[in-house]
Amino acid sequence: MEKSFYMNEALKEAYKAYDKKETPIGAVVVKDGEIIGRGHNLTETLNDCTAHAEILAIRQAAQNFGGWRLINCDLYVTMEPCIMCSGAIVNSRIKKLIIGTKHIKNSYTEKQHEFKIDYYQDNNVEVSFGTLKDECSKILQEFFKALRKR
Amino acid sequence: MEKSFYMNEALKEAYKAYDKKETPIGAVVVKDGEIIGRGHNLTETLNDCTAHAEILAIRQAAQNFGGWRLINCDLYVTMEPCIMCSGAIVNSRIKKLIIGTKHIKNSYTEKQHEFKIDYYQDNNVEVSFGTLKDECSKILQEFFKALRKR
Repeated sequence: MEKSFYMNEALKEAYKAYDKKETPIGAVVVKDGEIIGRGHNLTETLNDCTAHAEILAIRQAAQNFGGWRLINCDLYVTMEPCIMCSGAIVNSRIKKLIIGTKHIKNSYTEKQHEFKIDYYQDNNVEVSFGTLKDECSKILQEFFKALRKR
Repeated sequence: MEKSFYMNEALKEAYKAYDKKETPIGAVVVKDGEIIGRGHNLTETLNDCTAHAEILAIRQAAQNFGGWRLINCDLYVTMEPCIMCSGAIVNSRIKKLIIGTKHIKNSYTEKQHEFKIDYYQDNNVEVSFGTLKDECSKILQEFFKALRKR
């Protein structure tokens, strides 16, 4: 399957978050072509600041995989992970990280972005940006536009 | 109460992890002098690489606090948090972070330590090191010594 297929599955997760008025970010974990973990941001719904899409997808994947070390697994996520999720990705031993769009929040600085790129490299996580970039960006822009109106 | 009182409670959590053959790290979240969240490392027990002491304490505190923004709450942890947990601490809006001992694993570099110090500062988290440092360090040393023997 193409990268865009799995990113589209992550986007479906992001739309589930959108429908719950959560910041619309989605993620899937893929092992040998099969999706073994899915997640969308549920911070408000679960009253849990750690309930980001990536964390939930990684936790579900570990249960399906039968071990917390997600050897040879890839993670697709619609937006660049925050520092917490970057740490979880490294801790989980994810092999490839495929990101839709760069972080769009002003609170995330270029310094943090640069640290993350080094950190992934130091821990042998291969990173790529831009798969379905426009679609991944659009849902976030729409969400924040609607939020400003509310 | 003194800082050492709360760090001792975090140490009690670390000993629970030790008894389960988990890396012995413990944490508590304190609001107005009251412990509202406790956690010890359960990575192996829960088969979850995100089940670090800090994450579990923060998640429990949010349920007791009634909101995921832990305004005016402090976190005590026996060992310097990893990148994932540092991100969770910032995401949760913890005010003060009180650390027992510095990170002792070789896989954690000085570069990461320096990034974390800047990152806390940029996000208005006050950090201190060294409360019950010897006790917090000793339990880890004993754990790794026993692990090498097994």
